[in-house]
Amino acid sequence: MLSEFNLIAQYFTRSLRQDSRAALGVGDDCALLTPAPGMQLAISSDMLVEGRHFFPNADPKKLGHKCLAVNLSDLAAMGARPLAFTLAFSLPEARAEWLAPFSEGLFALADQHACELIGGDTTKGPLNICITIFGEIPAGQALRRDAAQPDDDIWVSGTLGDARLALAAYRHEIMLDDAVLDAASERMHTPTPRIALGLALRGIAHAAIDISDGLVGDLAHILERSNLGATLNVDALPAGTMLTQQPLDTRRRFTLAGGDDYELCFTAPVSERAAVLAAAQAATTTVTRAGSIGAVPGLRLIDAHGQPLHLQTASFDHFTSP
Amino acid sequence: MLSEFNLIAQYFTRSLRQDSRAALGVGDDCALLTPAPGMQLAISSDMLVEGRHFFPNADPKKLGHKCLAVNLSDLAAMGARPLAFTLAFSLPEARAEWLAPFSEGLFALADQHACELIGGDTTKGPLNICITIFGEIPAGQALRRDAAQPDDDIWVSGTLGDARLALAAYRHEIMLDDAVLDAASERMHTPTPRIALGLALRGIAHAAIDISDGLVGDLAHILERSNLGATLNVDALPAGTMLTQQPLDTRRRFTLAGGDDYELCFTAPVSERAAVLAAAQAATTTVTRAGSIGAVPGLRLIDAHGQPLHLQTASFDHFTSP
Repeated sequence: MLSEFNLIAQYFTRSLRQDSRAALGVGDDCALLTPAPGMQLAISSDMLVEGRHFFPNADPKKLGHKCLAVNLSDLAAMGARPLAFTLAFSLPEARAEWLAPFSEGLFALADQHACELIGGDTTKGPLNICITIFGEIPAGQALRRDAAQPDDDIWVSGTLGDARLALAAYRHEIMLDDAVLDAASERMHTPTPRIALGLALRGIAHAAIDISDGLVGDLAHILERSNLGATLNVDALPAGTMLTQQPLDTRRRFTLAGGDDYELCFTAPVSERAAVLAAAQAATTTVTRAGSIGAVPGLRLIDAHGQPLHLQTASFDHFTSP
Repeated sequence: MLSEFNLIAQYFTRSLRQDSRAALGVGDDCALLTPAPGMQLAISSDMLVEGRHFFPNADPKKLGHKCLAVNLSDLAAMGARPLAFTLAFSLPEARAEWLAPFSEGLFALADQHACELIGGDTTKGPLNICITIFGEIPAGQALRRDAAQPDDDIWVSGTLGDARLALAAYRHEIMLDDAVLDAASERMHTPTPRIALGLALRGIAHAAIDISDGLVGDLAHILERSNLGATLNVDALPAGTMLTQQPLDTRRRFTLAGGDDYELCFTAPVSERAAVLAAAQAATTTVTRAGSIGAVPGLRLIDAHGQPLHLQTASFDHFTSP
């Protein structure tokens, strides 16, 4: 069995980048990070628990990707540029067969975004992975949840609901062909954090959030914090490629409240429509306009013909959901 | 049962301080932190797992204290001033009887050090608490592990071994009177992070580390990183008040390799002895000189008469220890 120190050395210690903001990385009591002048640090922590956020037999390489992806997604939703992260995890035993592919998946995504591992902690226990991520953003430019304005358009990046479709198949709520399930599963296991889009939307979008618990619940956070309401055209929402083959009711429910999408939901002034589309193109990410912010509190769902829709949807809550 | 959002709101959402470095706290995708000009951020993560770092029936108020204390101790060992922390935890259920005292113990210590909770994550799962802490330090002044110099004195703060004594009693390795066990247990359950001492040692000490896994193992990190060796006078080490009543062999073993002390071990030039003592007095913390750094690699233990001691000691390793 590997000792804790050998384990860290073998799989998680790398040299700092030439252009690193870190003055000191893994191996001291603390890491040292020097933000550039005029920059704020954006900080987020996400904890992923076996059996709750991923299956006990989850592919460790994909898991390494996903743990970092969900944190990068929080930076994207603020418009922050990734800098560094810490990794704390407990695992039942230090096995190379798990650690090697886990660190491979983790660092592959980290390297794509020039995001360095600068510290952390390892211990024995039920599998639990906690990443805290650091990004930087010019002071005052963050895309906050409380910044939506009346008459803003509501936009969604990429597509929604394919991760939820895969989950439905795993739960035997729905039958899928193997090829369809494989494609949908990719969305669940290896989400794409929308970093480039978040950066491109600085100065254009007002409010933003990443869609992790389902669009309805996450948009509700923007509305609550901004003290506003919204009308959402459910049939305008961009369904995932696999989800488009499903019946209308499934499409609507999974795009609205699927969870695990890690797309961005953001608001922007009507006058910035061309700028939003240009930002999306620059970030090679599709965006879809699907509603608007209003002064009256609450979320109103409408169909393609503008008629009110009454759908039972619920956002994911870690303590009251099954 | 409380939902995740109610739980965060009820126990973990407070207003930011007037003098906060945080521009945005709990409740968005990320927190925003603005370090003062010329400052580096010191960052550390520690994960505490039920059954590994604390007993399943641990007092939640003391546990709240300890989770933050072990992180503050890492800042102390760098000479950093606490600023803020994130808290991510999984727990089996959201019970007020646990959350209320846990948050009380956590915030009582946080307030002592003006250290703000700025974000985090809560989820369902086996009890696991991960704190990432942020401190600031003028660029270049951190007390690093790799900065020891030949002929430096080796110093230890406070006393060592009482936490290990309590553990020995819990494990039935040793019998203690109730009053002695209670006193020793306090050292185990509510350690005191040496923040004031760490700050006072800036510019005086060379290298520092906090003693979490036992002095021998932690001092070895300084020696390894600094590429040096040391001679340690075992009988000069400051044994805990309760430990002093134990036989010599127990005193030696528990001061050398006790673990869970959260005292500082640091090195400083011989010429700075008066300055070290003045810093300790300013920080109202005792310090004891117990050895010296040398050019020859390895750690040599000696007794009060300068004779070599051959003791079996081992540092705690989270994967190879029982």
